[in-house]
Amino acid sequence: MPDPTRLAAYHADGRDRYGLVTDAGIIDLSVDFGHEFKGLKEVVAAGVLPRVVAAAAGRLPDHATDAVDFLIPLADPGKIICVGVNFPDRNAEYRDGQAAPDRPSLFIRFAQSFTGHGQPLIRPPESDQLDYEGEIAIVIGKAGRRIAPEDAYDHIAALTLCNEGTLRDWVRHAKFNVTQGKNWDRSGAMGPWIVPFRDAAQLDDIALTTRVNGETRQHDRTSRMIHGFRQLVAYVSTFCTLHPGDILVCGTPTGAGARFDPPVWLKPGDVVEVEAEGIGTLRNTVMDEPC
Amino acid sequence: MPDPTRLAAYHADGRDRYGLVTDAGIIDLSVDFGHEFKGLKEVVAAGVLPRVVAAAAGRLPDHATDAVDFLIPLADPGKIICVGVNFPDRNAEYRDGQAAPDRPSLFIRFAQSFTGHGQPLIRPPESDQLDYEGEIAIVIGKAGRRIAPEDAYDHIAALTLCNEGTLRDWVRHAKFNVTQGKNWDRSGAMGPWIVPFRDAAQLDDIALTTRVNGETRQHDRTSRMIHGFRQLVAYVSTFCTLHPGDILVCGTPTGAGARFDPPVWLKPGDVVEVEAEGIGTLRNTVMDEPC
Repeated sequence: MPDPTRLAAYHADGRDRYGLVTDAGIIDLSVDFGHEFKGLKEVVAAGVLPRVVAAAAGRLPDHATDAVDFLIPLADPGKIICVGVNFPDRNAEYRDGQAAPDRPSLFIRFAQSFTGHGQPLIRPPESDQLDYEGEIAIVIGKAGRRIAPEDAYDHIAALTLCNEGTLRDWVRHAKFNVTQGKNWDRSGAMGPWIVPFRDAAQLDDIALTTRVNGETRQHDRTSRMIHGFRQLVAYVSTFCTLHPGDILVCGTPTGAGARFDPPVWLKPGDVVEVEAEGIGTLRNTVMDEPC
Repeated sequence: MPDPTRLAAYHADGRDRYGLVTDAGIIDLSVDFGHEFKGLKEVVAAGVLPRVVAAAAGRLPDHATDAVDFLIPLADPGKIICVGVNFPDRNAEYRDGQAAPDRPSLFIRFAQSFTGHGQPLIRPPESDQLDYEGEIAIVIGKAGRRIAPEDAYDHIAALTLCNEGTLRDWVRHAKFNVTQGKNWDRSGAMGPWIVPFRDAAQLDDIALTTRVNGETRQHDRTSRMIHGFRQLVAYVSTFCTLHPGDILVCGTPTGAGARFDPPVWLKPGDVVEVEAEGIGTLRNTVMDEPC
């Protein structure tokens, strides 16, 4: 597979920008389109990803990739809807004798719970149970309600990656719902960029891997998901209209730190990498929250 | 108590507006401030509620209150964080022998799950279990993280009401989390307006009542909440920074339709009213979703 088209949001020379990531560096496209489309969300919503990408043709990079600060790809995304338990082995890990669930468990994260590629994942002083979950995320490009599974891919504009960082002891801090444990500021990461979605082969059977300090902790293929991408789009859009810029975070393979015996939590200095074929590698280092 | 100051978002004469609601009608303040502050969220975020209210002094109404379409007060709110089980009798209704929870259960709703005052509450064809939950909501006016309970009220800009409409059979549609049942498009309502928050007496011990077709179904006082407003602001801001325009929906008294034996669901034509002292009455009629 050739290198995918990669569009990143980043901060450089004093302001937020977006551009095309190439092996030689980043071509700043916000200088061309920023007045019309403030960020990549607006590019996606306007359906002009191909036009923006085409404008980079033949240009030299404006920024060295390692000299910029990556931001989450859509600065102000719409709804961020996350899927729990969605790979067969992972559900078995719950060891409660229940069959794989008929319907996806869903929870919501706020954009502020994610940081960009290369930025620190924050472990707060209230918990030492920071955990990783590597996931593929889809960015909605076309609005829809009650979308049929066979039409679902027409509504996807782009792909990205998430480390769906979780404070495990806060996931069940109260009687119901995982909200708290999933929404600590900058406890997760999203990026490094978005890859325009053009072909079912970009999603149907790709490898997804999470490494901690170079050691593989999660590895699976999207063809094994309990609820596939098409089903997720159909199910979520049953109850709420999906809009351009909404993001579905599609579930993680087995092997999060909570499932080890004893559990293995992330510590300051740990490097977490989430990699998927044809999308890229999202890399972040854990840091204790500054006092 | 004199009539509270009431600022509403509404649609009239072809565009979205905001203004001061008086007994004689609505004074349109978006003609004065709309270029500077697009909506009430921007008014709240800029900390200019008193200035906007003052501009209405001595003016005649521009719109008859019954001739406008009310919108949810903040068109594009920040995070909407909702509190489960938060009045003592209501928790006892779960009849599972567990003590009142130490920490509030939290879930998230999207703005699109709410409609404005006077607009129809939508019952979708997928469920006949639409239920009501009358609640008080606080609108954050000043950002903060790890806010101390004694400082919490300094972060509240305004108050409003919610009917936290719920599709009961979709609350436990999957193994974990209530996300689905709480996020059907226009299944709940918010409004009718915001009331600027100036004094602890506006929150500390006010009556909250929900009526269906004139019959009282829920009635309690905020002084009996398990987790008070100050505690909720403190708890939520432990894990995520609160920003101006964020909304906390603070939990409902006993008496939702699900708790009757047999349960009593809302039907098309039912009128649901949520009323709180010093805030107002949010009124909506149930309608089947048009085909």
